Amino acid sequence: MIDKAYSLVGNQTAATGGRMFYAQAAGTGTSLPGTFHAATLAEVATAADLAEAASLEYGEWSGRQKQALLNRVAELLEGGAAEIVQRAQLETALPLPRLQGELARTCMQLRQYGQAAAEGLFAGVRWDQPDPARAPLPKPELRSSLIPIGPVAVFGASNFPLAYSVAGGDTASALAAGCPVIVKAHAAHPGTSWLVGDKIRQAVVELKGPAGVFSLLFDDGYEVGRELVKDPRIKAVGFTGSRRGGRALMDLAAARPEPIPVYAEMSSVNPVFIFPGALAERAEALAAGLQASVTLGVGQFCTNPGLVFLIGSGSEPARRFITKLSELMAATPPGIMLTPGICASYQQGVKKLASLPGVVCLGPQLDPGEKPRPAGQAMARLLVTAGENFLRTPAMQEEIFGPATLVVECATEEIALAAARSLEGQLTATIHAAAGELKPSSPWLKLLRTKAGRLVYNGFPTGVEVAHAMTHGGPYPATSDGRSTSVGTRAMERFLRPFTYQNFPAETLPPELQADNPLQWLRLRDGRYQI
Amino acid sequence: MIDKAYSLVGNQTAATGGRMFYAQAAGTGTSLPGTFHAATLAEVATAADLAEAASLEYGEWSGRQKQALLNRVAELLEGGAAEIVQRAQLETALPLPRLQGELARTCMQLRQYGQAAAEGLFAGVRWDQPDPARAPLPKPELRSSLIPIGPVAVFGASNFPLAYSVAGGDTASALAAGCPVIVKAHAAHPGTSWLVGDKIRQAVVELKGPAGVFSLLFDDGYEVGRELVKDPRIKAVGFTGSRRGGRALMDLAAARPEPIPVYAEMSSVNPVFIFPGALAERAEALAAGLQASVTLGVGQFCTNPGLVFLIGSGSEPARRFITKLSELMAATPPGIMLTPGICASYQQGVKKLASLPGVVCLGPQLDPGEKPRPAGQAMARLLVTAGENFLRTPAMQEEIFGPATLVVECATEEIALAAARSLEGQLTATIHAAAGELKPSSPWLKLLRTKAGRLVYNGFPTGVEVAHAMTHGGPYPATSDGRSTSVGTRAMERFLRPFTYQNFPAETLPPELQADNPLQWLRLRDGRYQI
Repeated sequence: MIDKAYSLVGNQTAATGGRMFYAQAAGTGTSLPGTFHAATLAEVATAADLAEAASLEYGEWSGRQKQALLNRVAELLEGGAAEIVQRAQLETALPLPRLQGELARTCMQLRQYGQAAAEGLFAGVRWDQPDPARAPLPKPELRSSLIPIGPVAVFGASNFPLAYSVAGGDTASALAAGCPVIVKAHAAHPGTSWLVGDKIRQAVVELKGPAGVFSLLFDDGYEVGRELVKDPRIKAVGFTGSRRGGRALMDLAAARPEPIPVYAEMSSVNPVFIFPGALAERAEALAAGLQASVTLGVGQFCTNPGLVFLIGSGSEPARRFITKLSELMAATPPGIMLTPGICASYQQGVKKLASLPGVVCLGPQLDPGEKPRPAGQAMARLLVTAGENFLRTPAMQEEIFGPATLVVECATEEIALAAARSLEGQLTATIHAAAGELKPSSPWLKLLRTKAGRLVYNGFPTGVEVAHAMTHGGPYPATSDGRSTSVGTRAMERFLRPFTYQNFPAETLPPELQADNPLQWLRLRDGRYQI
Repeated sequence: MIDKAYSLVGNQTAATGGRMFYAQAAGTGTSLPGTFHAATLAEVATAADLAEAASLEYGEWSGRQKQALLNRVAELLEGGAAEIVQRAQLETALPLPRLQGELARTCMQLRQYGQAAAEGLFAGVRWDQPDPARAPLPKPELRSSLIPIGPVAVFGASNFPLAYSVAGGDTASALAAGCPVIVKAHAAHPGTSWLVGDKIRQAVVELKGPAGVFSLLFDDGYEVGRELVKDPRIKAVGFTGSRRGGRALMDLAAARPEPIPVYAEMSSVNPVFIFPGALAERAEALAAGLQASVTLGVGQFCTNPGLVFLIGSGSEPARRFITKLSELMAATPPGIMLTPGICASYQQGVKKLASLPGVVCLGPQLDPGEKPRPAGQAMARLLVTAGENFLRTPAMQEEIFGPATLVVECATEEIALAAARSLEGQLTATIHAAAGELKPSSPWLKLLRTKAGRLVYNGFPTGVEVAHAMTHGGPYPATSDGRSTSVGTRAMERFLRPFTYQNFPAETLPPELQADNPLQWLRLRDGRYQI
């Protein structure tokens, strides 16, 4: 039961705090139990001070120590699951089974990053042996590995109150990399944030971590987040949210006296390309799969397919696909969105898209006088246009966060290719083809590689597997930095940098750099990989 | 013999060109044979167009194809070595043996990156196998690797007219990563740039590379460089030069509609810490080693040791060290610097430092009326101050590019640690200690890891080994991005991004992602490294 919550600054609950605010029930926006206090700027500075101090000690924790911490956080979350999930349900309106699944995923991620740290998957060990006899100069001995970048600021996401929030992927990967974390809690689920943050605090205390390894700061505005990104002790930022929000953080970070990397996962319309053979073979099944993907979680996924290109417009299978899809969308019950603001933005986005020349809204008709529903409920929307219109109208590429999709009927493959070429950077792109229809020499393979971080074949982009080989990233504006992923173990690389010891005495070096490789981690020895 | 040189745009010599300029002899600034024409903005755009078009094809070249290209460039440079080195000598005043060595290093780098590409050292292959039976959802098959980021703009460095210029480390690592390169030639050595660029052009033609794989643009001003960094088709920037120049490119890149990474290697004073035991054991040898490192190449190295901290001021060994060092610096003959402008900046920097409170200039005294010498010659300079002064005066940290160093006498280890804590990010930091004097628990190890990209033990930072385990990078402002290195094979990572195929038919995937691993490259299979 949350009564009065202040920020967690290191292992302490802050004694004071700034402006008070309430958590709001999703949909209605009515206040939920508990009061929260925005962090003061003094609390931000104290958290940063503690994080910097913790960085030296925690940065040298072994992989196994970091694993123990992350595993303990997972255990404590599982122990508190009932309370956490119940609170999250009030704050987000996401269904209980989804939240239970998300909590399980959160714990799985924590354990997976911990295991990656313990097994040195991202240690990046390299060892070039010396040659004192080399002319004209002796060759030095070089031993290098990846070391933590320093304290990381994490911004919780509204749409994943557990898996991409306080103990989510950014936090887990940064802690696994050896970086202290300061989370700015998302104001749409402060109670959930507090319950989860308190488990991390408890795990840090139990495992005797330095106090500043973790802090959780509240704010229902932007000041705390801005101050955090500007703080000279912060060395990187993780963010999941809107393009406007992510770009604002990027600009703030780039303007610092010492610019720092921002890993922002921002916006994507996740184009789906349906080849004629696939359409002929399974028009109805494709429509059903697409409807499920578009409306999953009231469309509140960053991998939601917002653009569907049919190659071969006007064909009989295309007609069947659109008819089936519009029936399914019309039959989709309205869903409560995460916040009244998100619901209003969704409705505005749909109206704007429907007003563009050549766009037709199928399924439930838009009521011109429709107001945001009091309960924040959103209807699924299907819009259709022709490839030529799409090519003329860049605004059709804008992400609408929610259960809507735009089907673009392309008369020819050339038009579809031109449309694909015109796309901004995406998290994913999807191809549906009949067996053998996608040729190894296909221009689609080359082209879509430049547009996205992940290509999906005969599937749908939602349901991001948490795995070593996952890339949840992509060229701007899908993310701030297409060289990274925010899902999967490779996310740890975002918070590491290479570091080299030249001719150092062995006894001063960490175990992974010892000649006999006591941890048995992968290393590159004189240019050859060895395990 | 260079007569009239236009930019190389793709495989063609541009037919027109903008403003004419001459190459200047280092030191005197008198004009050298040959006229050069700044690229026009239309030529910048054409080069970017060609690079974008080349990116799709060249990005899919196999590692062996890229190796063949880079090896051929090396062969052609070796074939033209006499002419290239002679021209470089006129333009830079660097001694012939140094330039011959630099050309050999340039060719070695090209071959090393080519080999890394051929052996897949940076392929980053990951393969998570599917589990169709998994509940509640089937587990997809994910295969990922690192793919090229796209066209890269490279800015040649003044102080490495070969190894960090047209065919230098940035170009070689970007080409090895699969990225087309557009080089902005440094105006201090346009003739050298043209001769080298023409060899790359020739290799591209011979190996049947797409025309836009390489372009070389001239400009004696800033417009071409700015235009290049702002061009939407450019996806990353490599730069070696001043902090002001690097930061200007960073700001330009961050302000683009699509921000891109800038890898700028900018400024470093490369602190050296001499422990009391080392000083007692070998004061004179340390002085000799330091003088050689400070004055090597007229001090024109980014790893030049500009700050030397003696722990234990006023001791008899400290006195011997300073006496010896000032004798050696005084006996160092003046050297011609790369350009008259660099020489003037050096002299201004020394004067500014000497004017700071508590700084004493030993060795050759500064003549208050000294003008920049007509021949651009610089004297070696030794300045000395006390640790307390250093702590009070941040301006003492500013890099002076040239053969000067500031010795800081610290009465206690605590003062030296405080000084180290006050330092900005560095490329290197060096410790000189007697056997056993640097304890594994020493606070120096923890602290210096946060300050630099490379720690040197009982050596000097100049002489950067080109090796797999090298880190030539470090926290800002040493570089724009401490997560990277610009020397050694790891530099390729700067130009790669992860990319994932989900459930794709095997025949559409590149060989490194095939199940039977035909290239025998390292991969992470279901979380285990396999070779």
